[in-house]
Amino acid sequence: MKKQLLLRYGTVCQFEGFVTKGCFRLFTIDHEGNENVLYFAAKDWWVTDIDSFTNQTPAFLSIQALEDSEVLLVNKSDKELLYERMPKVEKLFRIMTQKTLVSLQRRLIRNHSLTAEERYQHFISTYPEIAQKLTNLQIAAYLGITHEFVSKIRKKISKGQ
Amino acid sequence: MKKQLLLRYGTVCQFEGFVTKGCFRLFTIDHEGNENVLYFAAKDWWVTDIDSFTNQTPAFLSIQALEDSEVLLVNKSDKELLYERMPKVEKLFRIMTQKTLVSLQRRLIRNHSLTAEERYQHFISTYPEIAQKLTNLQIAAYLGITHEFVSKIRKKISKGQ
Repeated sequence: MKKQLLLRYGTVCQFEGFVTKGCFRLFTIDHEGNENVLYFAAKDWWVTDIDSFTNQTPAFLSIQALEDSEVLLVNKSDKELLYERMPKVEKLFRIMTQKTLVSLQRRLIRNHSLTAEERYQHFISTYPEIAQKLTNLQIAAYLGITHEFVSKIRKKISKGQ
Repeated sequence: MKKQLLLRYGTVCQFEGFVTKGCFRLFTIDHEGNENVLYFAAKDWWVTDIDSFTNQTPAFLSIQALEDSEVLLVNKSDKELLYERMPKVEKLFRIMTQKTLVSLQRRLIRNHSLTAEERYQHFISTYPEIAQKLTNLQIAAYLGITHEFVSKIRKKISKGQ
């Protein structure tokens, strides 16, 4: 259900989820109450707080549905059993984790090396389907800029077209 | 050797390295020539551009020794062979990749939610041995702030003690 929380900050994440419909956002809230989006997870993406799930510690992240969504969940013991019984699952998750690591590394590099406008352009051209589901506020919380700045960039781009 | 490059930006990373002595920094250079440190790798850490190594594409990162260092290297085909012949290696790297992913996720969250001073405090308390090898400029390039600001924080802390 839209706006429903799949995971609430401070609880232990007991699942890895595979999104079969809809879209989720994974976010933190800082001291001043600002939301910061770590990433969005659309159809065919995995969704979890890997830190909390792996270490069974309280989550730093919350996970919320952006629209009516469906997700398949696997818990930690079932996942360990899968690894044990099917070595190919181990390989699959090793490769997937590697891919997630690569995309997080790229994101950190972009945060350092691109301007806010370049990051915005990169985001909407890489994930056009996700971007169209989002408000300026949600995109701003992902890019780490104000939503006024997102509006400004959007106006500038539409003028330029 | 100090300052020697293990990997140069723009070349394909042909190794994963295990640091047995010394310390390396992994960094990018932005359009304005500013260096941004993705992370430091000390003894017992792995060092690679996972993006370039996995996808065999030109590296975004450079890797440089901060002091006289030693590193054991494995290339891609040997690593694939290891995976094939020893399923436990697959598990080991799945778990290590997961840990790296967790630490990168934590870093992204800290970048959003902590002040520069809090990030500095976190860095020197988590990695005191690495921190003492570094100049203000190198720490600044890791925290994404100016080195003048690092000097300011250091002065403030030493006054407070």
